[in-house]
Amino acid sequence: MTTGARVLLATAAAHGIDVCFANPGTTEMPIVEALDAVPAIRPVLGLFEGVCTGAADGFARIAGRPASTLLHLGPGFANGIANLHNARRAHSPVLNVVGDHASWHLAYDAPLTSDIHSLARPVSGWVATCAAADRLAADTAAAIHATSTFPRLPATLVVPLDHQQATVPARVPAPGPVPTRPRVGGDVVEECAKAFRAAHTTVLLLGDDALSERGQRAAAAILQATGATAFSETFPAVAERGGGLPDVDRLPYFPEAAQKALADADLVLLAGAREPVSYFGYEGIPALLAPPGSVRTLARPGEDGAAALADLAEALGAPPARAAAVDPITAPQSGELTPQAVGAVLAAHLPDGAIVSVEGGTCGYPFFTASARAARHTTTTNTGGAIGQGLPVAVGAAIAAPGRRVIALQSDGSAQYTIQALWTMAREQLPVTVLIAANQRYGVLQTELGRIGAPLGGPATRSLTALTDPSIGFVELAAGYGVPAVRAASVPDLIAALGRALASDGPALIEMAL
Amino acid sequence: MTTGARVLLATAAAHGIDVCFANPGTTEMPIVEALDAVPAIRPVLGLFEGVCTGAADGFARIAGRPASTLLHLGPGFANGIANLHNARRAHSPVLNVVGDHASWHLAYDAPLTSDIHSLARPVSGWVATCAAADRLAADTAAAIHATSTFPRLPATLVVPLDHQQATVPARVPAPGPVPTRPRVGGDVVEECAKAFRAAHTTVLLLGDDALSERGQRAAAAILQATGATAFSETFPAVAERGGGLPDVDRLPYFPEAAQKALADADLVLLAGAREPVSYFGYEGIPALLAPPGSVRTLARPGEDGAAALADLAEALGAPPARAAAVDPITAPQSGELTPQAVGAVLAAHLPDGAIVSVEGGTCGYPFFTASARAARHTTTTNTGGAIGQGLPVAVGAAIAAPGRRVIALQSDGSAQYTIQALWTMAREQLPVTVLIAANQRYGVLQTELGRIGAPLGGPATRSLTALTDPSIGFVELAAGYGVPAVRAASVPDLIAALGRALASDGPALIEMAL
Repeated sequence: MTTGARVLLATAAAHGIDVCFANPGTTEMPIVEALDAVPAIRPVLGLFEGVCTGAADGFARIAGRPASTLLHLGPGFANGIANLHNARRAHSPVLNVVGDHASWHLAYDAPLTSDIHSLARPVSGWVATCAAADRLAADTAAAIHATSTFPRLPATLVVPLDHQQATVPARVPAPGPVPTRPRVGGDVVEECAKAFRAAHTTVLLLGDDALSERGQRAAAAILQATGATAFSETFPAVAERGGGLPDVDRLPYFPEAAQKALADADLVLLAGAREPVSYFGYEGIPALLAPPGSVRTLARPGEDGAAALADLAEALGAPPARAAAVDPITAPQSGELTPQAVGAVLAAHLPDGAIVSVEGGTCGYPFFTASARAARHTTTTNTGGAIGQGLPVAVGAAIAAPGRRVIALQSDGSAQYTIQALWTMAREQLPVTVLIAANQRYGVLQTELGRIGAPLGGPATRSLTALTDPSIGFVELAAGYGVPAVRAASVPDLIAALGRALASDGPALIEMAL
Repeated sequence: MTTGARVLLATAAAHGIDVCFANPGTTEMPIVEALDAVPAIRPVLGLFEGVCTGAADGFARIAGRPASTLLHLGPGFANGIANLHNARRAHSPVLNVVGDHASWHLAYDAPLTSDIHSLARPVSGWVATCAAADRLAADTAAAIHATSTFPRLPATLVVPLDHQQATVPARVPAPGPVPTRPRVGGDVVEECAKAFRAAHTTVLLLGDDALSERGQRAAAAILQATGATAFSETFPAVAERGGGLPDVDRLPYFPEAAQKALADADLVLLAGAREPVSYFGYEGIPALLAPPGSVRTLARPGEDGAAALADLAEALGAPPARAAAVDPITAPQSGELTPQAVGAVLAAHLPDGAIVSVEGGTCGYPFFTASARAARHTTTTNTGGAIGQGLPVAVGAAIAAPGRRVIALQSDGSAQYTIQALWTMAREQLPVTVLIAANQRYGVLQTELGRIGAPLGGPATRSLTALTDPSIGFVELAAGYGVPAVRAASVPDLIAALGRALASDGPALIEMAL
């Protein structure tokens, strides 16, 4: 016999969970105690729940399998929702374990009681409350199976305190086979090939595992054989890039530019991507960005898009792509820091195998442009638009991939939503290099104000979109969280600071004055 | 004619809203632009939504009327849920304005689309999405009326982007009378007086406006006339204290102590408080803390408990209470910083009319004990248990009460959930003195581990309840956010730092090494 908490963790470990990003409270203490009895699961403390959920998302994107979170009732879960929204959009598997009051205590509506399911449903593909202690092992296995089944979504298991503490049989259900991506049928591939041959101008839109190395190589074969062009979805969960992979640019963010990029296509073929829609609705601009009637789906998100592309290449008789010659990056050695300079310098200095967690457009887009010619690396982007993703995803990526350098290329405004991630980087001594694009404003909002004809009209508008008075001292914040940090005001500053940061085994932060 | 956004704000202003705690995004830009056209509403930027919702809660508690928040779709709202949970438990009126996609854009499930109602319902007494631009004025008025009606709860109005931008008549509905607290019927008062006379031992449990000066003076009259005793609910939203008010202690937090405090009562009379229940459910300890059959309600939360107490005093023939002699506080002048020393030093130095936002037990309980003999002040506590309340409530309180000193007496662990509040204090130059109780651990969790027989058993347990490796540098964090800060390691340090901080017109932070 053992406790419910221990059988929960033993089941999770047996079913492949080996990291728990935790911000526990009183109702999770039996699980905390049980973590000492189940050392196969590594506990990682976050000072704020959004760090935990974002880290679990980052872990899943890089490891390809779920980590768990451990969160405290409804309010603790709520603090993790924003990054679970991003995880849902990334199709990341995440096991959320949420403690709740003892089942017999819920009726008394104690201060922390709330409707956890109502909070969890919008960001979970599977939600359940464990109804009895002897169901904990089966419920844990069911939650992991649910979140691991494609198209993957977070799963949330609510565990009342009394069930964690109860004495139960030490029986752990045997794990079944790990779910794999459903293959796309040969008939679908054949129809797509037919449409491809009939089309005058084809654009491939790649997302999900079509942006894996295998997917991109198959896409490259198709492009070389047919003259089609390709884009990545605008905000991919994970994209391999550099090192001779084809330069697949992201579909532009603003709808006019995205429409223009697709305007000539009579076939927009989706491989792991959804039909492109405008990020926001603008009066007079259609929500659907591809020409009417042009869209056809080769593989949906969650399906085996890489294999489908390989099958399509074969159906089209496309030979393997020739490796393209890669021009070296010409990065500036001097001058002021501009977003373009930052993008080029980072791309030029990127270590082989790096993971770049990009959040924010200021330097994110210039870096992506430059990074096609960088060393082979992996990029993650903000899939759901809930800002505060970049730093936590960097935490999770570093824990998922020991030995790989992680860069967080992060805008200043969005960094603030989960700034506490810096502390976890310091505590776990993660090899994360944080580059803060400190332009001291919500740049995208000032752009959007321009779009609605209100460019910084008055004091309220200015005040709500500027990050000045006072400016935020990221070097001081990093020091408060135990991360060494410097300010860089010029290209030589950045090159020197980047060199030192990349030589360190632990975290470092560079505040880039733009 | 005007825009939907402007008519929304004009209606809010006409119905008494004059502050907007905002963290807007693209879908709120028309409202941001409109804030320049409606200068009656002061915009206050938070770097994180939990700062905004907690500030609105603090504003409501001190001003007694709602402020608004301005939040960005589902994920932005989600970041504000934890402090809205506390606001709900505090019965604080709050008008949440949440932008959403253009109504015609929702069907396309763009990245930021989510089920906002499912997120909002658990923390709102009223939720609606504005269905048409010409409904915006009426919906805004309805939301303000809903949140202002006792027992007050936050109201959440979702406003699609297209309705904000639409051209609508500049017609603002006239405000009705401001809702007031329902009076408790004479029959209820009479029955309570009868029960009081029949009871051997009575305990008054005060909450809500029974903890106002008027309520406490009426309670004091009853206590002096009858020999009854009184407690404050454990986590009052607002409590007046000091300056000769009766020393009404808080009902203890842990259930054994609370049960003991009530054990002798054959009548537990609730005035604005709910029946006391155990904060968490512990095996073998009943959830209901008062002796069975002892509980009777004079006034429910939201009713006019202060008037009911005055009526009860009259029914019992209790003369006005004599002012009690107040012994001066004997605060230490030297020695190490202990929670008791902090409580006494702060109580001794408290400026008249101060507002003390208490979060965390480490210094919170010792301060409350000492503060009965302090100058007259107002205390706010964490009503819902969602941590990260203290600093935002201090922001809102300072904006609600210009000219009053605000003290945030704040534990270190809980400070981290909304640490970005420091920046708003700096930007608005609020007279907030932040005292961080830096004991470098989640003290309550280590206590709770002891209660379940697992006192820091192994490395996981230690790691998940300690705030060390690295320790958090609050002085550096404050510097990063533009707040002057010092460390205090002894009583003389604290006295000196407190003197300087209280002499400053703006914010200051003192990290107290405990």
